[in-house]
Amino acid sequence: MADYQTIIIGAGPAGNALAYRLASTQKVLVVENDLFGGTCPNQGCDAKKMLYSGIEVRQQAQRLQGHGLASAPKINWPDLMAFKRSYTEQVPTATEAELRNVGVTTVHGTAKFVAADLLEVDQHQYHGDHIVIATGQRPHQLQIPGAELLKTSRDFLDLDQLPARIVFIGGGYISFELANIAATAGAQVTLIHHNQRPLKQFPQMLVASLIQQMTAAGIQVQLGAEPQAVKKTATGLQLQTSAGDFDADLIINATGRQPNIDALGLDQVGINADVHGINVNDHLQTNLPEVYAIGDVVKRTLPKLTPVASFEGDYLADQLLGLRDDAIDYPLIPTIVFGTEKLAQIGVSVNEAQKDTRHFQVTEMDVGSWYTYNRIQDKNAKVLLVKDMVGQVVGVSVLSALADELINHFADRLAQGHAPLYLYPTTASDLAYLN
Amino acid sequence: MADYQTIIIGAGPAGNALAYRLASTQKVLVVENDLFGGTCPNQGCDAKKMLYSGIEVRQQAQRLQGHGLASAPKINWPDLMAFKRSYTEQVPTATEAELRNVGVTTVHGTAKFVAADLLEVDQHQYHGDHIVIATGQRPHQLQIPGAELLKTSRDFLDLDQLPARIVFIGGGYISFELANIAATAGAQVTLIHHNQRPLKQFPQMLVASLIQQMTAAGIQVQLGAEPQAVKKTATGLQLQTSAGDFDADLIINATGRQPNIDALGLDQVGINADVHGINVNDHLQTNLPEVYAIGDVVKRTLPKLTPVASFEGDYLADQLLGLRDDAIDYPLIPTIVFGTEKLAQIGVSVNEAQKDTRHFQVTEMDVGSWYTYNRIQDKNAKVLLVKDMVGQVVGVSVLSALADELINHFADRLAQGHAPLYLYPTTASDLAYLN
Repeated sequence: MADYQTIIIGAGPAGNALAYRLASTQKVLVVENDLFGGTCPNQGCDAKKMLYSGIEVRQQAQRLQGHGLASAPKINWPDLMAFKRSYTEQVPTATEAELRNVGVTTVHGTAKFVAADLLEVDQHQYHGDHIVIATGQRPHQLQIPGAELLKTSRDFLDLDQLPARIVFIGGGYISFELANIAATAGAQVTLIHHNQRPLKQFPQMLVASLIQQMTAAGIQVQLGAEPQAVKKTATGLQLQTSAGDFDADLIINATGRQPNIDALGLDQVGINADVHGINVNDHLQTNLPEVYAIGDVVKRTLPKLTPVASFEGDYLADQLLGLRDDAIDYPLIPTIVFGTEKLAQIGVSVNEAQKDTRHFQVTEMDVGSWYTYNRIQDKNAKVLLVKDMVGQVVGVSVLSALADELINHFADRLAQGHAPLYLYPTTASDLAYLN
Repeated sequence: MADYQTIIIGAGPAGNALAYRLASTQKVLVVENDLFGGTCPNQGCDAKKMLYSGIEVRQQAQRLQGHGLASAPKINWPDLMAFKRSYTEQVPTATEAELRNVGVTTVHGTAKFVAADLLEVDQHQYHGDHIVIATGQRPHQLQIPGAELLKTSRDFLDLDQLPARIVFIGGGYISFELANIAATAGAQVTLIHHNQRPLKQFPQMLVASLIQQMTAAGIQVQLGAEPQAVKKTATGLQLQTSAGDFDADLIINATGRQPNIDALGLDQVGINADVHGINVNDHLQTNLPEVYAIGDVVKRTLPKLTPVASFEGDYLADQLLGLRDDAIDYPLIPTIVFGTEKLAQIGVSVNEAQKDTRHFQVTEMDVGSWYTYNRIQDKNAKVLLVKDMVGQVVGVSVLSALADELINHFADRLAQGHAPLYLYPTTASDLAYLN
């Protein structure tokens, strides 16, 4: 039986941030049963934004048609996918090599708790003074007949060929982002959501404007459509919903994500968790004092994003190294949808402000005619400012091709002494490495 | 004779910033003998960046050839010019209307000092308690035979058709930016500079890399070529230099700019100035206490840029309104070349650092393989960090398609309590209006 000071289950952004920080002073083990690097680089934010590279250039060229550009470049899907793979294919090996390089031990396999300080992986046992669960999430399965015919975002992000007709089920950012990529690359795309409030954390006014643009770009957005069944047809697949049937060659289920906790044997040792994730206190500690959880597997209402996972990994490193003992205090967390335009926000949301008009007011600014947005023909660009009662900006929502740049600047402006968290991956999210 | 509290000569960014601030409390006159709005919006930064819109998209598409994009959109010059004009053509009228709208009196004509507090414009006299010179600069004329055949940046920025062969004389940012626009739009371009140090305020290593890229993009860069004469040929023009002759259809002289002071009658009232501009003290006051100067017409070593001009206008407004009496204290001034890639810097320059190795060290980072730059195939992206002796970053230089974003973030990081100045025009330079 091998002995470690800290065992981390899961080699994603949370686990790795922690492992790197501990490596020089502790004996650390990282256990991973899928790809080293985790969701973000392999089949999440990084992978998606590699595909978005050509997509956003084509969209910018489309905006400038007749204003100096004679055409908009078409997407070559196999080339675009090869470009994505040129990045993703080296991630698992490189990530594991980097961990080993700083002295971390790595093991491939599925970890199961035997005791609060003891794990079993492929019949080997590993003792840890502390054990940290950082197993993240996976796509939620729909419980409808034919659900086994559905694919996930992970499949979409690795398609050799782009199918002619694609349906995305779900009204979250994954569905919106992938629908935009697929449609811009030439697929006939339908996005289906069960209620009338897709992207519900964003201001409805901006979401409506985004949907208008997506519709103008040829994407069919069908709200209020409850998925009921999937079946094979002579030419492909059919999704049956409460609002009609949709034929497709590929149907992506992007209706949400659920914590990766089934295989951990949490019940056996009595770690509190439910379908939303693992319960932790304000020190990221589970009900067992030796066991912590960080990243997307944690049950919390904060957005489940890479910068939050890294922040928690860093925080826990400080705790385990005895550098601090205060409760975790999150900075403002900016969020973004890389869509037909970018929809992003930070700070007090418009939705919160509209529920509390005694403390907040919302200013709407159509900035499409401003020089910056007119120059790129981003005509629908909009900024919503949430101000407190003394007129101070405390929240910002933006729909624009430049939303990422603007929200990252507000991450600085609204940080109030915290080290700001930036949208990931962006120019700003590299700043931590430029020092 | 009309009486004003403040008369401003010149309706560019400096004069307008001042006029707007004074308008609600003072009787203000603005005199302009050219286009209201001044150089920046009419034939400078704003006009240039309208043309850059299509150019930068074509260049980004070129970077992604074979990585998902099947082509790069060609530039249609007349359309691109029409797009620029859709912005610039409304500038003079709109600018003057806005000034009048806030209560400022405007006059078209050339102002000449009669006394320290008295101007003559077209045989009318105007008395001002304070007179502010904000007349900016104009292109420097070359003193060589045939110089009358040369055109300027102002002409280039308003070309109906793009000539087949264009020579740019000069090694400053105007020459580099316009050469890039012309070449990307399809012209055969030569850039000529008299010595071996073009863009001399930027790190030579980054300039060399930029020139390499320009050369790869088909621009001939000829250093050490002293212009000697221009003559007409059977097919167009020829520039004769110490390094050979260059045939062209259009030759742009961009060898520098000089202050617009000739018509002001400065000598007559004894205002100190020379070929580099008007002498002012640290309150922007000339040797005559009633007379101030702001913007590019001022003799100083700081970069002559729109944000600096606006900053001075704002500062002087505070002075004239009695809100402050301290000496002007400039924030860090970021600078940029919108070229084949963007070359930008802020803070302590690499050149300063290399001259003072006891206090500074320079770290070179090839960031082209980083995710952010690899994603857009910005393979040559480089960051140079200037650090002080305790390892604190005090200056940054960047060559990258994303240099503007990164330098604007460092404008925040290095601001140290000052309100930061951002590169203009960028997403960040709008922040002052988003509150």
